[in-house]
Amino acid sequence: MKQTKKLKVVVIGGGSSYTPELVEGLLARHQDLPISDLWLVDIDEGMDKARVIADLTKRMIAKAECDITVHLTTNRQQALAEADFVCSQFRAGRIEARLRDERIAHKYRVIGQETNGLGGFSNACRTIPIALEIAKEMEALCPNAWLLNFTNPSGMVTEALTKYSTIKTVGLCNVPVNMERGAAEMLGVDRKDITMQIAGLNHLVWARKILHDGKDKCEQVINKLLAGNDRMTPKNIPPFKWDEGIIKSLGMVPCAYLRYYYQSRDILDKEYAASASKSNRADLVAKVEAELLEIYKDPTLDTKPKLLEERGGAYYSEAACELMSSIHNNKRSIMHVNTRNNGAIQGLPDDCAVEVSSIITSSEIIPLNVAPFETGTLRLIQLMKEFETLTVEAAMTGDINLAKRALMLNPIVDSGQHIDQALKETVRENIDFMPAFAHLLSK
Amino acid sequence: MKQTKKLKVVVIGGGSSYTPELVEGLLARHQDLPISDLWLVDIDEGMDKARVIADLTKRMIAKAECDITVHLTTNRQQALAEADFVCSQFRAGRIEARLRDERIAHKYRVIGQETNGLGGFSNACRTIPIALEIAKEMEALCPNAWLLNFTNPSGMVTEALTKYSTIKTVGLCNVPVNMERGAAEMLGVDRKDITMQIAGLNHLVWARKILHDGKDKCEQVINKLLAGNDRMTPKNIPPFKWDEGIIKSLGMVPCAYLRYYYQSRDILDKEYAASASKSNRADLVAKVEAELLEIYKDPTLDTKPKLLEERGGAYYSEAACELMSSIHNNKRSIMHVNTRNNGAIQGLPDDCAVEVSSIITSSEIIPLNVAPFETGTLRLIQLMKEFETLTVEAAMTGDINLAKRALMLNPIVDSGQHIDQALKETVRENIDFMPAFAHLLSK
Amino acid sequence: MKQTKKLKVVVIGGGSSYTPELVEGLLARHQDLPISDLWLVDIDEGMDKARVIADLTKRMIAKAECDITVHLTTNRQQALAEADFVCSQFRAGRIEARLRDERIAHKYRVIGQETNGLGGFSNACRTIPIALEIAKEMEALCPNAWLLNFTNPSGMVTEALTKYSTIKTVGLCNVPVNMERGAAEMLGVDRKDITMQIAGLNHLVWARKILHDGKDKCEQVINKLLAGNDRMTPKNIPPFKWDEGIIKSLGMVPCAYLRYYYQSRDILDKEYAASASKSNRADLVAKVEAELLEIYKDPTLDTKPKLLEERGGAYYSEAACELMSSIHNNKRSIMHVNTRNNGAIQGLPDDCAVEVSSIITSSEIIPLNVAPFETGTLRLIQLMKEFETLTVEAAMTGDINLAKRALMLNPIVDSGQHIDQALKETVRENIDFMPAFAHLLSK
Amino acid sequence: MKQTKKLKVVVIGGGSSYTPELVEGLLARHQDLPISDLWLVDIDEGMDKARVIADLTKRMIAKAECDITVHLTTNRQQALAEADFVCSQFRAGRIEARLRDERIAHKYRVIGQETNGLGGFSNACRTIPIALEIAKEMEALCPNAWLLNFTNPSGMVTEALTKYSTIKTVGLCNVPVNMERGAAEMLGVDRKDITMQIAGLNHLVWARKILHDGKDKCEQVINKLLAGNDRMTPKNIPPFKWDEGIIKSLGMVPCAYLRYYYQSRDILDKEYAASASKSNRADLVAKVEAELLEIYKDPTLDTKPKLLEERGGAYYSEAACELMSSIHNNKRSIMHVNTRNNGAIQGLPDDCAVEVSSIITSSEIIPLNVAPFETGTLRLIQLMKEFETLTVEAAMTGDINLAKRALMLNPIVDSGQHIDQALKETVRENIDFMPAFAHLLSK
Repeated sequence: MKQTKKLKVVVIGGGSSYTPELVEGLLARHQDLPISDLWLVDIDEGMDKARVIADLTKRMIAKAECDITVHLTTNRQQALAEADFVCSQFRAGRIEARLRDERIAHKYRVIGQETNGLGGFSNACRTIPIALEIAKEMEALCPNAWLLNFTNPSGMVTEALTKYSTIKTVGLCNVPVNMERGAAEMLGVDRKDITMQIAGLNHLVWARKILHDGKDKCEQVINKLLAGNDRMTPKNIPPFKWDEGIIKSLGMVPCAYLRYYYQSRDILDKEYAASASKSNRADLVAKVEAELLEIYKDPTLDTKPKLLEERGGAYYSEAACELMSSIHNNKRSIMHVNTRNNGAIQGLPDDCAVEVSSIITSSEIIPLNVAPFETGTLRLIQLMKEFETLTVEAAMTGDINLAKRALMLNPIVDSGQHIDQALKETVRENIDFMPAFAHLLSK
Repeated sequence: MKQTKKLKVVVIGGGSSYTPELVEGLLARHQDLPISDLWLVDIDEGMDKARVIADLTKRMIAKAECDITVHLTTNRQQALAEADFVCSQFRAGRIEARLRDERIAHKYRVIGQETNGLGGFSNACRTIPIALEIAKEMEALCPNAWLLNFTNPSGMVTEALTKYSTIKTVGLCNVPVNMERGAAEMLGVDRKDITMQIAGLNHLVWARKILHDGKDKCEQVINKLLAGNDRMTPKNIPPFKWDEGIIKSLGMVPCAYLRYYYQSRDILDKEYAASASKSNRADLVAKVEAELLEIYKDPTLDTKPKLLEERGGAYYSEAACELMSSIHNNKRSIMHVNTRNNGAIQGLPDDCAVEVSSIITSSEIIPLNVAPFETGTLRLIQLMKEFETLTVEAAMTGDINLAKRALMLNPIVDSGQHIDQALKETVRENIDFMPAFAHLLSK
Repeated sequence: MKQTKKLKVVVIGGGSSYTPELVEGLLARHQDLPISDLWLVDIDEGMDKARVIADLTKRMIAKAECDITVHLTTNRQQALAEADFVCSQFRAGRIEARLRDERIAHKYRVIGQETNGLGGFSNACRTIPIALEIAKEMEALCPNAWLLNFTNPSGMVTEALTKYSTIKTVGLCNVPVNMERGAAEMLGVDRKDITMQIAGLNHLVWARKILHDGKDKCEQVINKLLAGNDRMTPKNIPPFKWDEGIIKSLGMVPCAYLRYYYQSRDILDKEYAASASKSNRADLVAKVEAELLEIYKDPTLDTKPKLLEERGGAYYSEAACELMSSIHNNKRSIMHVNTRNNGAIQGLPDDCAVEVSSIITSSEIIPLNVAPFETGTLRLIQLMKEFETLTVEAAMTGDINLAKRALMLNPIVDSGQHIDQALKETVRENIDFMPAFAHLLSK
Repeated sequence: MKQTKKLKVVVIGGGSSYTPELVEGLLARHQDLPISDLWLVDIDEGMDKARVIADLTKRMIAKAECDITVHLTTNRQQALAEADFVCSQFRAGRIEARLRDERIAHKYRVIGQETNGLGGFSNACRTIPIALEIAKEMEALCPNAWLLNFTNPSGMVTEALTKYSTIKTVGLCNVPVNMERGAAEMLGVDRKDITMQIAGLNHLVWARKILHDGKDKCEQVINKLLAGNDRMTPKNIPPFKWDEGIIKSLGMVPCAYLRYYYQSRDILDKEYAASASKSNRADLVAKVEAELLEIYKDPTLDTKPKLLEERGGAYYSEAACELMSSIHNNKRSIMHVNTRNNGAIQGLPDDCAVEVSSIITSSEIIPLNVAPFETGTLRLIQLMKEFETLTVEAAMTGDINLAKRALMLNPIVDSGQHIDQALKETVRENIDFMPAFAHLLSK
């Protein structure tokens, strides 16, 4: 019988301060997900922190009285052997790289957010080579396992993985699940009765339908959103006022990141100001990380602490665990994931990654069909997808002209000589993580 | 509470000999579908037969001890008022029209089957005006009701309804549900564990995926099909040997009707021969109808008789009732229906009807995304869709040139002067049902 | 015989300081273009200037010993009656409006150029209503005449005209003809032996092919361009250094305006600085206009003065006259024009306006097929076309949300609250020319 | 100076009875086409006939007093070395193969015409390997030469050449040039004043525009065609009556071969009847061939004999010579050729061959943009293109399943077991010319 099969779950970047969130989720669903072994993999430089996390994990498991063995290792291949699920949540270059990305980006006054603009580009070029290394090891060591990717930039990483590896890959982000929960709260209804359909790209996504009791409630949710009753935006994104004219006339519920496109000057000015005052995202993250680690060290702590939710990862564990459960149990749940387009969004290549509501089976992810987007929105999606695809190609090849063209197309990054300089500085300072670009420095 | 709402279900063409099948299904699901009133609507000419059906229906309900009131009427508008579900299974021109269609088609040696070729064209032109009349009445009398269409040609009727009416419409055919049941049998697995995805047009449909336990089992099913172990084909379609080279190289499981395209000469020659010997489909149907009616008259009969299954409608009631239940209970079941394309199948217009596996909610039908078809198959689908769309336009406008162009494109009908004559004869003999074409006769 | 038909040519905005350039061209081709009557139409406010222009025109004609009668009028309908060619070169709101556009745009730090960004939007909304008024008069008074549009923003005005009028319309810009002449000079070959194919949108156009003697010379021209040997850029555009990596890797010859996209920060910073120092484009134009008018007044002047070429309109007369000649004489010349897409550029709607090399016949403009663009460039074109199309719709309807969405999509305009304010100011200050937006002020 | 360059022209299949037609054309344009050497290449089996042709050619050249040396050889590589133009008009398997194709096709009652159906398939599979062999030799021996292909099936051969060789290739057919001449005659105007635009596939082509004096004359030409005044159809195609309803409602001028689609039964019945009575096309061709050869042997004959025109090749020399002249002299003439689609016809792959009106330069063939086809016609084109593309792939790979799928899709060939048998017989009887299929026989 299937249910008796015990699962081996591997977490790459297991020393992340997010891990307790994931562990909490796994324990809550232990009935559905009969895990016998949980492997936390991290790198040498992260072992001090990882040990703290592993210890907390063990205490949480003990408290839940589950029979799961926790393994902490730097030997990734040992961990991957015959795995069933591999959760990838590593950060290439750790928090220092993110701080550096933001510093360089803001020096040249372009966006340094970790999934978009220069920061997103830099992060992608650091992360994709490692993600593919993992996937290649999986092809050899656990070819039937599923790779669940939470590492940012999740859309581009998923695209690289689906294009260049045969491993079954799903990219996950907590933005859609926050939207779904928020919509239910805003409508005052049970989330289980809602059928929300989202579509777009990672961090560029809209709720196209919020079906409840025979009706689409998008308009209702939009009105509440514009009235300031926003329960959808993760806590890590500061509150904001949407342009009513744009939002209403589009008739879809935007994810919080769309403010980068709909109100780029307002949000970027805020970001640059925060950067100047050291209250920008990367600095905040670094500060919370340090605090969290202190808390985790408390040997009496055996549950996920409240502070973790402020990092913006809320419900990410929920999404991850529900995804594993739906795959393992062939539940055919509707979930919101990054996967190969394959025609789901008209006007994008079949082989690119998109973020779409999909049916999760034990065999495949089948996206729901996306009704055609209004042309203007499609154009924005197409342009950003091209930014992403060119970035993936640049990451794979080290072709600096592809990098320039990617950033030139990005609608929230202006083009010009500063990009040339910013790119050079980015490559120089990240060269250990971007071997494909090494040829540029030797010149 | 929702579950307490009692449902009013209307059956147009309620005097059909299929009705006991539907009633059986409704009774089996009475828990899910709390029906209080079942209205059987038919025309004056059909009342003798309809009374027999209504009486049998009442006996079946009594036996099942359900609290459903049966109404038999010729007053369609009275029946439609505040209905929740309207099942359309009428036959425009009754069995006589079908006999006539086959006679004319075979006289000119073209296909006279009721959903394709000249017969399909004729049937569509008779049926669409009535279907739209019903839909218009529903817009006024029960605008929130769902129209479930089983009337053939189901694809074209659904297209006309979705293009020219605002009523929520789903077209249903028993071919896909037979494929799903058959695939489970052939694989020896529980049907509930299978996720089958079909795509195409009505009677031109393939199983693209038959997912089970982490794998796609299409190849396995194809091999069994070629080996003669066919559990998919409805009983009304005679057994047949597929061309192994074509089927294997396409890698999809074809529905039985695809033999009209993959082996047109073989199947059409058989059809014409059957027609000559009065053993063709329409004659058989007329014969079985008469027999069934005699059986139905037996006042001791209070269940669906076995003979009904031979008409080829097997599992049609299952599909219809599961559809109503999934809508009523927002079950989000995956079902195989005819609905607006809206991008689901790449390369077809958004506003045409396609037959695709879809999620059924209480608010909407959301198709699963269809992975791009191999080009050759797409071309066949595109061509046949154009035949259908031109036929719908001809039915709406009475434009004989659209009719000619439709038939000229149909790949299993050859073109030429005989079509001109066959069309004239078809219009002349059906003129009571094709008022849009009246202008041609007055000339 | 056709050649004996005498032509009536009407110039709307005939009082423009460009007119002598056009007149020079017409006189040079008098053999091909047997004009009997040249009508200069202008508005009351422009009559002082127009009289100066008309007098110079007469002196130029006299010197050339051509038999052309010059008519100066404010009565547009009288002029249009039975016209053969109507050249539209009016400026809605005159130079003052352009100065105002730049002032508002730069106040909110967005691009104020007359064909792009906020300035282009404003100009389109002022110009399109008048252009359509003219077209509607032509439908009544000279339905077979050709409308040659030089009024900026030429792409959007042409799109509005082809969508909303039945008059045969061609949009013309002097950028492509400058590229063609320049390429010939840079290659040191006879321009007649070159076949240049351009494609894109107005002011967003590339030479895709520069064929000469059996070879495509694009790479050669790009190298010369990058080496600083630029003979393509009109004099009104300041010199500039392209990013070599971008240009070479794209492999097409960009028009000068592409620097707005490839190096947006560099060029916009320059524009804003010029604006601050009153050396921006609109101010320069106003200054040159005044100087030109003084020169034109000289009663001994009977040729086009040199200074006119500095306005950037060089070779515009050549393009206009060659276009008229090719139409009149069915020459089937290859020219570079704005016309209905109709499939020429893949990925754009059929009914939008594009700038493409085309065959000019007496009956129709037939674009040359455009080989598919590399995806990144296509995305840029698609996005800007959507900006244009939304702008046209906003101009036609006065829908401020369409305006916001247009500007939000424009990749060289950032979005946000400043756009809301800038739009309001633009509408308020131009309300006499934008009646469709009047409803916004009365609120 | 270019004009002084002397040209080397090679004719593959130079022993064809068509050659005198080509020679006549070359002589008529000797001013434009300064040929010094004309190489006739043929195979051993054809040398007897080829010598007759070569002798007649020499007499024709002598009469015209041109300085062209004629070479007759079986050494193709010697002929190709440094050639400027290579005309391919060979017939793989000679007339015997064509007779065989028709025999097999008619035995199984499917179309045996040399460019369509089973006959077209067989011809393509014989011809494509040889055509590619020639192209590969050209890549080595004369990489800058142009390959002008007249060998049927011209569309499929051109597609194979453009997909699998780097040689500049143009496919030519005399159908469009006959349409253009015929249209001028029917309109009573000078052909030079007409701009006809055709589009489609080889032998599946329509005149989309017939522009003259500011108007499109398609409707006028259609009316004359329907009235029986057909000057467009080559003499080798028997007269025929179009279906007025279809032709008028499509609004395009069909080429004569479209009767195979618009009136398939009428034309195929005629073809099969002719076959039975030995008056079918291949038999007629064989008979005329024999007669022609007798005439050619007459040592006093020094011009092209009248009888040649009856073979249906009329104006083929005109097209061929005009094409060479337009390439050599960079004339930018509009001609109707088979070339790579590259977006010219929307809805077809970029890399397939289409027949479209194009600009002929010395560097490239640039198609005119084709306005989108009405959907029904597009579907027909798409389907037939897929037949062609699958046939090309089958010819390249010897994959019998591709062959079956190609023929299954062909709308004028019915599918079934007879195709399986017909294919086997075709392969068996042509195995010397279809080495890719040899694996099937060894089984």
